[in-house]
Amino acid sequence: MSSSSAPTPRTRVVREPQRAVYDRDVLNRILDEGFICHVGFAVDGQPFVIPTSYGRHEDVLYIHGSAASRMLRNVSGGIPVCVTVTLLDGLVLARSIFNHSMNYRSVVVLGTGTAIEDPEEKLTALRLLAEHIVPGRWQEARQPNEKELKATTVVRVPIREFSAKVREGTVIDDEEDYAFPVWAGVLPLNVVAGDPVRDSRVPEGIDVPDYVKSYSRSR
Amino acid sequence: MSSSSAPTPRTRVVREPQRAVYDRDVLNRILDEGFICHVGFAVDGQPFVIPTSYGRHEDVLYIHGSAASRMLRNVSGGIPVCVTVTLLDGLVLARSIFNHSMNYRSVVVLGTGTAIEDPEEKLTALRLLAEHIVPGRWQEARQPNEKELKATTVVRVPIREFSAKVREGTVIDDEEDYAFPVWAGVLPLNVVAGDPVRDSRVPEGIDVPDYVKSYSRSR
Repeated sequence: MSSSSAPTPRTRVVREPQRAVYDRDVLNRILDEGFICHVGFAVDGQPFVIPTSYGRHEDVLYIHGSAASRMLRNVSGGIPVCVTVTLLDGLVLARSIFNHSMNYRSVVVLGTGTAIEDPEEKLTALRLLAEHIVPGRWQEARQPNEKELKATTVVRVPIREFSAKVREGTVIDDEEDYAFPVWAGVLPLNVVAGDPVRDSRVPEGIDVPDYVKSYSRSR
Repeated sequence: MSSSSAPTPRTRVVREPQRAVYDRDVLNRILDEGFICHVGFAVDGQPFVIPTSYGRHEDVLYIHGSAASRMLRNVSGGIPVCVTVTLLDGLVLARSIFNHSMNYRSVVVLGTGTAIEDPEEKLTALRLLAEHIVPGRWQEARQPNEKELKATTVVRVPIREFSAKVREGTVIDDEEDYAFPVWAGVLPLNVVAGDPVRDSRVPEGIDVPDYVKSYSRSR
């Protein structure tokens, strides 16, 4: 697909094609709001789906973890992978059970992963990852040393073949069901940060940083 | 594995094995709190990971969707599948970037899916699914008719081979980092329901039901 956004037969959305989006701006907004992906890979025909965090820079996804991770060992070996990000926005309560749905935005990326070997590129990718999840944290925290860099695997997955799917808005019922006497509508769902819980060994006088106090995923 | 909860080589947790749980009660609590899974399957060696809702009854997961769904056509055909459920509980902000983590509970189920043919069993499974996502809704809404049942595929995935992984509690830093002058702790994340948005065609006098007003995933 290179930089074009036309779907391939593998990423063309079959069900509810009116919900399909192949636009890179939409894709990027979904990827930038989320930070948990589900990585799929197959070993001897058995698929595995493993949750992990990710970062994005331009047309590349970065995932990372321990060098001992079975998932990363597999995914960095050049086998086909699928990286899926799902944001759940609400429950759609229709009059008929059949027309119940959910509002969501999801992205499916098909590609292959490559482990980053160059320590400088690795460090850059780790900064991207950290800043993707908690913007502001990298500068304040104790940054990785050489030993930690060696113990970390970072995998890059170029975003070439992808699709996004978006369902938003209100209930769509069959015309004859609108008379059915039941409440219908959307129950929005949001990921909300609670009150930060200070680690007991943080000295008095160190306050909760603003980037934690005002944490939000909406961009 | 039958009803035993010992891990197989495929479900044994390699990384952070102290976080691994093979207990069915823990598994069931995670599955009952969540309602979105990521289903993995491979076609010609290419894995796909598709988000969908699910229900559980005893040792069986149910997923459903349109009979035209590519995912369900694949998954109901007896090929190996992986169903993963992830609940994100918080961001763990350590003093070192390296020790940053997340609190989460996740479940990985390996198995095979079978489409349910019997209409009565299908209806039972659809009720389970609906009640899993919005308890109380099935009784109030207009239940599926014969035509809708035919247009719906329901797939059962027996929960035989599985693992769960749980990370909870506070930051764990390396001893020498505790002196590093930065705030550290956990930022809890919760899925929270917002104010219900009534569909414009609901007649006056029909109130938001209690099961919508008080909606919560915590059990």
